[in-house]
Amino acid sequence: MEALLQTDLSAVVEGVNMLWVLTVTFLIFFMHAGFAMLEAGQVRSKNVANQLTKNLLTWSVGVIVFFLVGAGVSNLVGGTGFAESFAYINGGSAAWVSWLFGAVFAMTAATIVSGAVAGRAKLRAYVTYTILLAGVIYPVVVGFTWAGGFLAEMGFHDFAGGMIVHGMGGIAGLTAAWVIGPRMDRFNDDGTANVIPGHSLSFAVLGTLILAFGWYGFNVGTAAAPLAEGGTELADFAYVGRVALVTTLGMAAGAIGAAGVALLKTGKVDTLYVANGLLAGLVGITAVADAIVWPGALVLGLLAGAQLPIVFEFVEKRLRIDDVCAVFPVHGSAGIMGAVLFPFFAVDGFSVGQLVTQVIGVGVIGLWTVAATVVVFGAIRALGEARVTPAHEREGLDTSEHGVDTYPEFGQPDGAVADGAG
Amino acid sequence: MEALLQTDLSAVVEGVNMLWVLTVTFLIFFMHAGFAMLEAGQVRSKNVANQLTKNLLTWSVGVIVFFLVGAGVSNLVGGTGFAESFAYINGGSAAWVSWLFGAVFAMTAATIVSGAVAGRAKLRAYVTYTILLAGVIYPVVVGFTWAGGFLAEMGFHDFAGGMIVHGMGGIAGLTAAWVIGPRMDRFNDDGTANVIPGHSLSFAVLGTLILAFGWYGFNVGTAAAPLAEGGTELADFAYVGRVALVTTLGMAAGAIGAAGVALLKTGKVDTLYVANGLLAGLVGITAVADAIVWPGALVLGLLAGAQLPIVFEFVEKRLRIDDVCAVFPVHGSAGIMGAVLFPFFAVDGFSVGQLVTQVIGVGVIGLWTVAATVVVFGAIRALGEARVTPAHEREGLDTSEHGVDTYPEFGQPDGAVADGAG
Amino acid sequence: MEALLQTDLSAVVEGVNMLWVLTVTFLIFFMHAGFAMLEAGQVRSKNVANQLTKNLLTWSVGVIVFFLVGAGVSNLVGGTGFAESFAYINGGSAAWVSWLFGAVFAMTAATIVSGAVAGRAKLRAYVTYTILLAGVIYPVVVGFTWAGGFLAEMGFHDFAGGMIVHGMGGIAGLTAAWVIGPRMDRFNDDGTANVIPGHSLSFAVLGTLILAFGWYGFNVGTAAAPLAEGGTELADFAYVGRVALVTTLGMAAGAIGAAGVALLKTGKVDTLYVANGLLAGLVGITAVADAIVWPGALVLGLLAGAQLPIVFEFVEKRLRIDDVCAVFPVHGSAGIMGAVLFPFFAVDGFSVGQLVTQVIGVGVIGLWTVAATVVVFGAIRALGEARVTPAHEREGLDTSEHGVDTYPEFGQPDGAVADGAG
Repeated sequence: MEALLQTDLSAVVEGVNMLWVLTVTFLIFFMHAGFAMLEAGQVRSKNVANQLTKNLLTWSVGVIVFFLVGAGVSNLVGGTGFAESFAYINGGSAAWVSWLFGAVFAMTAATIVSGAVAGRAKLRAYVTYTILLAGVIYPVVVGFTWAGGFLAEMGFHDFAGGMIVHGMGGIAGLTAAWVIGPRMDRFNDDGTANVIPGHSLSFAVLGTLILAFGWYGFNVGTAAAPLAEGGTELADFAYVGRVALVTTLGMAAGAIGAAGVALLKTGKVDTLYVANGLLAGLVGITAVADAIVWPGALVLGLLAGAQLPIVFEFVEKRLRIDDVCAVFPVHGSAGIMGAVLFPFFAVDGFSVGQLVTQVIGVGVIGLWTVAATVVVFGAIRALGEARVTPAHEREGLDTSEHGVDTYPEFGQPDGAVADGAG
Repeated sequence: MEALLQTDLSAVVEGVNMLWVLTVTFLIFFMHAGFAMLEAGQVRSKNVANQLTKNLLTWSVGVIVFFLVGAGVSNLVGGTGFAESFAYINGGSAAWVSWLFGAVFAMTAATIVSGAVAGRAKLRAYVTYTILLAGVIYPVVVGFTWAGGFLAEMGFHDFAGGMIVHGMGGIAGLTAAWVIGPRMDRFNDDGTANVIPGHSLSFAVLGTLILAFGWYGFNVGTAAAPLAEGGTELADFAYVGRVALVTTLGMAAGAIGAAGVALLKTGKVDTLYVANGLLAGLVGITAVADAIVWPGALVLGLLAGAQLPIVFEFVEKRLRIDDVCAVFPVHGSAGIMGAVLFPFFAVDGFSVGQLVTQVIGVGVIGLWTVAATVVVFGAIRALGEARVTPAHEREGLDTSEHGVDTYPEFGQPDGAVADGAG
Repeated sequence: MEALLQTDLSAVVEGVNMLWVLTVTFLIFFMHAGFAMLEAGQVRSKNVANQLTKNLLTWSVGVIVFFLVGAGVSNLVGGTGFAESFAYINGGSAAWVSWLFGAVFAMTAATIVSGAVAGRAKLRAYVTYTILLAGVIYPVVVGFTWAGGFLAEMGFHDFAGGMIVHGMGGIAGLTAAWVIGPRMDRFNDDGTANVIPGHSLSFAVLGTLILAFGWYGFNVGTAAAPLAEGGTELADFAYVGRVALVTTLGMAAGAIGAAGVALLKTGKVDTLYVANGLLAGLVGITAVADAIVWPGALVLGLLAGAQLPIVFEFVEKRLRIDDVCAVFPVHGSAGIMGAVLFPFFAVDGFSVGQLVTQVIGVGVIGLWTVAATVVVFGAIRALGEARVTPAHEREGLDTSEHGVDTYPEFGQPDGAVADGAG
């Protein structure tokens, strides 16, 4: 009777689980609108259309590459045989739903990079990198981890991609920005920096809130199987409340942490720091949201937010890298921090072994990402294809790369503002 | 056999119910993006970043306070013992999901206030009020009602918070705007009013449509338990279609009602009245969406929309209160109207007793909200911390409070326009 | 025992299926925000509020008409008796959920038209047409097809409305734009065309991404019954993965197709073509997403995107119709193409009979839509009510029709730019 019941319930369980995965997949897809707005708001008006086009093409080119190549490469690197690794391509309904769920994570990693190289990267350079990221660079990271590779075997813990997706994307962005160099007028000959403010805080904050909305799909949705087969008990939904709570507290604390540090440093609450701090808080708990105690989310979110203004300044003034949309402080360092500090807040208690594993995992992913990005963008730069010409950069990429004017009816004075604190 | 089956199905039922609650919770969270855009669009460009920062901090500060304090206060006021009232804090997965569902309603009430006090309230004053609203003011209202207090025992009907959330928020906003006084140049010495138009109708309408989207979660999602335990019958989903239909008709009629009155008064269809009328229609049916006949939704929505231009003018020209984003006509008077008129459209038929109960409920919630808000903002004002300086207000709060310029590339002339009808 | 189990599971199945339909209905509703932003971005700043108001009223007026009249007309035309055709009006919870699911599709068709007639149609003309579209024109199309009419009996295949919703809307828009004539200064006396660029690519791309998000609801949600009654097997979710995959690949290929043709024609990747190409790719696979092989989605998406710049130019330079937001190339020709080419990519293999049926279906829907639109807009034009006065058009519809200024703080120079390629 029990056996019979389980058989009969299996379609219900499968349907409910697919329903949930599809719903959260749509939410995660919508994060592309968030990234598009967040990044568009942070660039000059002469480069807005370029940023938007990059975001549209990241998804469009990237998702096809990830279908034809990337997801299979993940499986291969994870230790699956060749035929089975690519079996999803003709795998039918359930396999395609699973693939799409993986694809929206992959495309999140890809789209982060565009914010770092804004305002000077050639479209063809960026698209080339996106193809390689979607086909190889990110899939190798997934191969090491979620697909069952050696980091997975070591016990590296990254629940929803705090390091695998965001940390990886943030590191790739920083590396790419370093290789192609800063925008014109960003740094002075004496080494001081100029601020080039984005054209619209409204779009930036809109993007932030769209991302936070989608992030509930990203984190909570990673508890992807509400029901256990057989249907007589919950599967991932046995802990889904922890993920939802921790995600909420982490993002809130992130905004407060960044606001607090900004207030201490300048006496004012910088809007963009608050917004990016909220995102850094989300990044900070993404790797660990299933397995930390909730006070840990407050601490981790606060730290992830607080490090943002500090790391941003370090990248700008010490490394002299022009990370336009602050993707490293938001996604990179916050992602690293969350993954590494996991054992201090773990539900199961602190463990030195886990700490070592986390450090190794972060190190491996970081090194691979830096190396691959240096090779790809280095080669593109060597071919003279990495940046638009100085004249085109001055004029704006909207005109030179796309032949459009984002705001034809509004004035667009241009120029950099000296940063007194430089 | 039946008993056994019910046992086995219970995990499926629990999983499906949690899935639904989480999905609608995310939708309701997204309403913050709607409020941010709606309010940002309705303020001057020199105050946009301030408005956006307030919205980000309302969520960030408020949700932590509501977790550590507010939800427990609700339970306490509702008559639950102390230990049990705060048990959710370490309550585990299901308790945390339930808490988050309550939290997104609480934060909706909180965020409404920021629209009323835009353009002159100090950030620290606003954040202080938000902490008290999330920790005490709103939780007391919930304690009286949803948490089982005396209004609940009397039979006060407020399905999804038309009065408890929106009415309360709108009344709090009006009161706060009254206590801190109008923006400079809003009223002339002879008592006439000047119009200070918002900087972007595009953002205002975007916010409206995001809110409407989230509102389906707010209303339809308040039918929070699709399935009854045991799974052999529907629970809240037995009436969910009524909620969905009534919400749809109410919002549609609200837009038409406001458009019609605007057309009668001025000969033109004011875009902002249409948008805010749609929202007022939603507010108007939120308290009663589970239990009115559908023609009632058309009437109630039409009335909620139609009262908007009239109440807005009354607040401006009689009360001389500067409710910047019209939060009282949209959330306050529409919420009151919906709750009070409930018995006239009830599925169960008219009842004088119910009418009296509704009036008492609205009165109690209104009085408490006015009193608490006067005390808090009155105290802040007495300390000289309620408003920025006239120089800072003139310059804009973006510069003085946040050190940013929302649109550094676009011109920002400033000034009030004489309202001929003043 | 099996029979008993099925009885007991039926409430679970009904609940899960309603939950899914409600969730995707909300997503499809959110497409109105997408259309509002996409269209607002593509019009001059002096006409933005007019466009936004039209979008708000399309939904508000249209959905009431579709409830009181339209859905019943569909049933009548589909062959159901009078009483039963309108039974949904008092049909109770499940019937109202089903009605709302149909309504969001109907309103999508309605809102497409506003983009074609932007910048010169009188508000009352547009609203009149919307009433007739929601009450009769679109319902007749649904009557022929989804409601069981003669095209359904012939086997016409349109899964989620690629032709029924989008094709119909695009054809209606083109026809309406033809009847009311082009905007001032759009065409020169010598027959050459001038470009009148929209005021904000940011809003246009935001709208695009909101639409793509909602489209997952539109397409994947049309697999509306996850579970079969009895619950012992999947119903629509047996093929839902195909819909999700094909939708993803189609939109991606659409963006690439349009980008490629733009690049070939001008040497640059026009941002608006990429965005609209992504939408055309979605339109192209909407009719067939349940029943084509995935390589077909790549081809169909690519073709739907590639035809966009070509058809747009044809409409502009040969037909000399001022289709402001390119609704015909995006929704019309892409929808026709997807429906007609279906048999070439069908999972079940090519069939001449199916091809003939598809051509007949497209022809019938197209002819009906053109005829009805010519009659309605022709009558309105004959009454002199189709267009605002030249003075009002010059000044902008925001002022003349709504008495508002969308961006009171930003400059709004106006004027058309000569299109060198004219």
